[in-house]
Amino acid sequence: MQEIQKIAEDMEKARYDLQFKYIVGILEAKIKIINEQLSEKSGREVIRTVLSRMKEPESIHAKLERKGYDRDFATAQEKLNDLMGVRIICLFLDDVYKVANMLKKQSDIKVIKMKDYIERSKKNGYMSLHLIVEVPIGISEQPEVKRVEIQIRTVAMDFWSVLDYQLIYKKDVSGAEEVSKELKGYSEEIAALDRKMLKLRNKIEKM
Amino acid sequence: MQEIQKIAEDMEKARYDLQFKYIVGILEAKIKIINEQLSEKSGREVIRTVLSRMKEPESIHAKLERKGYDRDFATAQEKLNDLMGVRIICLFLDDVYKVANMLKKQSDIKVIKMKDYIERSKKNGYMSLHLIVEVPIGISEQPEVKRVEIQIRTVAMDFWSVLDYQLIYKKDVSGAEEVSKELKGYSEEIAALDRKMLKLRNKIEKM
Amino acid sequence: MQEIQKIAEDMEKARYDLQFKYIVGILEAKIKIINEQLSEKSGREVIRTVLSRMKEPESIHAKLERKGYDRDFATAQEKLNDLMGVRIICLFLDDVYKVANMLKKQSDIKVIKMKDYIERSKKNGYMSLHLIVEVPIGISEQPEVKRVEIQIRTVAMDFWSVLDYQLIYKKDVSGAEEVSKELKGYSEEIAALDRKMLKLRNKIEKM
Amino acid sequence: MQEIQKIAEDMEKARYDLQFKYIVGILEAKIKIINEQLSEKSGREVIRTVLSRMKEPESIHAKLERKGYDRDFATAQEKLNDLMGVRIICLFLDDVYKVANMLKKQSDIKVIKMKDYIERSKKNGYMSLHLIVEVPIGISEQPEVKRVEIQIRTVAMDFWSVLDYQLIYKKDVSGAEEVSKELKGYSEEIAALDRKMLKLRNKIEKM
Repeated sequence: MQEIQKIAEDMEKARYDLQFKYIVGILEAKIKIINEQLSEKSGREVIRTVLSRMKEPESIHAKLERKGYDRDFATAQEKLNDLMGVRIICLFLDDVYKVANMLKKQSDIKVIKMKDYIERSKKNGYMSLHLIVEVPIGISEQPEVKRVEIQIRTVAMDFWSVLDYQLIYKKDVSGAEEVSKELKGYSEEIAALDRKMLKLRNKIEKM
Repeated sequence: MQEIQKIAEDMEKARYDLQFKYIVGILEAKIKIINEQLSEKSGREVIRTVLSRMKEPESIHAKLERKGYDRDFATAQEKLNDLMGVRIICLFLDDVYKVANMLKKQSDIKVIKMKDYIERSKKNGYMSLHLIVEVPIGISEQPEVKRVEIQIRTVAMDFWSVLDYQLIYKKDVSGAEEVSKELKGYSEEIAALDRKMLKLRNKIEKM
Repeated sequence: MQEIQKIAEDMEKARYDLQFKYIVGILEAKIKIINEQLSEKSGREVIRTVLSRMKEPESIHAKLERKGYDRDFATAQEKLNDLMGVRIICLFLDDVYKVANMLKKQSDIKVIKMKDYIERSKKNGYMSLHLIVEVPIGISEQPEVKRVEIQIRTVAMDFWSVLDYQLIYKKDVSGAEEVSKELKGYSEEIAALDRKMLKLRNKIEKM
Repeated sequence: MQEIQKIAEDMEKARYDLQFKYIVGILEAKIKIINEQLSEKSGREVIRTVLSRMKEPESIHAKLERKGYDRDFATAQEKLNDLMGVRIICLFLDDVYKVANMLKKQSDIKVIKMKDYIERSKKNGYMSLHLIVEVPIGISEQPEVKRVEIQIRTVAMDFWSVLDYQLIYKKDVSGAEEVSKELKGYSEEIAALDRKMLKLRNKIEKM
């Protein structure tokens, strides 16, 4: 409890919320342009929603604990990649990769890691394309870089993840295992649906 | 061509865009509050996206023609309910009806018509709950009322409708019929998915 | 202290922040339209900034005390007109009255009081046009009405008021009286400037 | 006329509007942070308004002509610093310089020129602090840099400039010279007012 409090205080001292707003402002400006470029090229809307969140002291603490790290904000900044998070929700499966490619092409941010949980979903069925990017922050004299986790997924995958998220808090409840299995099944159904809709879209576009 | 031009001019004369912005401003303020009230009650996000659009002169003209009405803006204002449109996209199936109920409870707008294309989808597979509401507009001395079509649907239904929309422009192309049939099939699949996800959500919430 | 706490709790119970957001949403939509209508007519920008604020429990309590009322939220809602406040900052003196006239013409809000502190400034030099309006709130079954204080002033008057506001917290400090007198003098200077700039603008427009 | 048309087309080809939106997005994120930092330090609001504009083909053409340059978009990009413009309006005179200093400290933008039209106003009375900055644009593979003119001024100076702007279009009209002289006089009055208000603010803050 005291450790969480300490993390919260250190975040405030560092004015982490200002840093977050700045970084997210840059990325959202970038994503807007990417969306306009891709939408113009394809003649249809590509990105439906962009969301962003700053990780709360409680879940920073929980993650440090789970990973066996020291439970303070300095360690969090060094070890965790998802203190700042941006989610991009696309309509179609191929759009996810198009957006990722555009992000990789930007000369002023650096993609330092990419994990494709669509190609190979997590054990529980979670699907998403994860990019860890470094964004320069220039709000003081020393140039610095902040890491951001960007999750790119389809609306269907995003819908699935809402239930997955609700399950986190009920892990040890009786019946949880059965529900998890059922949810995993829907993940495969959703993946199949995304592929079929994409195929049909391609068919329509070629007509 | 001249008729479309005339409709565009009459819309400009009536400053229809200003009226649209005002009406949509009111409705968006309302929907925001409804979302916060419902989200607070249910402990999860209820509305994911709100979109709005003003019908373009071209499609006003096309609709008047299709319905056999006189093709001018006065007739459009009298006969068509969807010159102004707002779309509310919810995560779960039951949220669609919760949002509709909240809209019906508002004392200053009036729901004059409701069509449930979820209960009974359109022939092509289209699903959505449609409300026609009357919103008072007080930007001049005479009180007046504007009709708005509010479409409420799930993210899954909305995803489906993107392809449906693309098909409109390819109706007479060869292969369109087959594609339409395939798309209709996915509509049923999506409806089934929405029901299963809702059932599972209810199970999780009761755990 | 306990009284302030109680006011804060009652505001939260009534979800006063949601009511505020709704009411301000309506008014801002209205003011936007008014700005576009006036700007179109005059061929120049009319409103420069719109700000809004909800009165904090501390200052609600202080105002109730100063006026000799019971110090609770129910009394505040009944007696105080400025729990919700909107400020409209115009470029020129005549624009202030044009905006006020447009607000009076709106059929769905009601101006119940108007105080012209420009025609006759407050003793300390404060200038602004104050309207108390009633805005219908329809977020539940019972129609209801909320009062809002709308302050309309020029950029020059608004600039002046920043210093006036800083003085509030230093009323009893030595030197305050002299500073107040000096500030009052600037108020007259600003009023004269506004009149001269308006006169010159009219001259330019007639050229 | 044809030259203006050509400039408009070249801007469209280069998708200059997208570039503008991106650059302005970055700068606005930066200015927001600067405002929060300065406001926190001084305990009062520092920046009142931020505006931005992209120079129109007509006025690009007029400026190229006035300066004796070739009248095409390539030349404009090379020679003109104000194709993209951002205006920051502060409450007090010293805030103008505080904001400028913060902008100079940013490690990822470069101030390449600064002109102080407050210290020494233009002949017609125009006052403002002008910074030309270079902002990196990374929306494609090749890193690039865009120049932006940032004008920083007080609300009082900004008020003055509205009339100055209206005069531009009436330069050759009879009576213009007299009006110009009158306006120039008000510029000095405004400068004096800004200095007096600042002095009084400092007095209040020290009380």
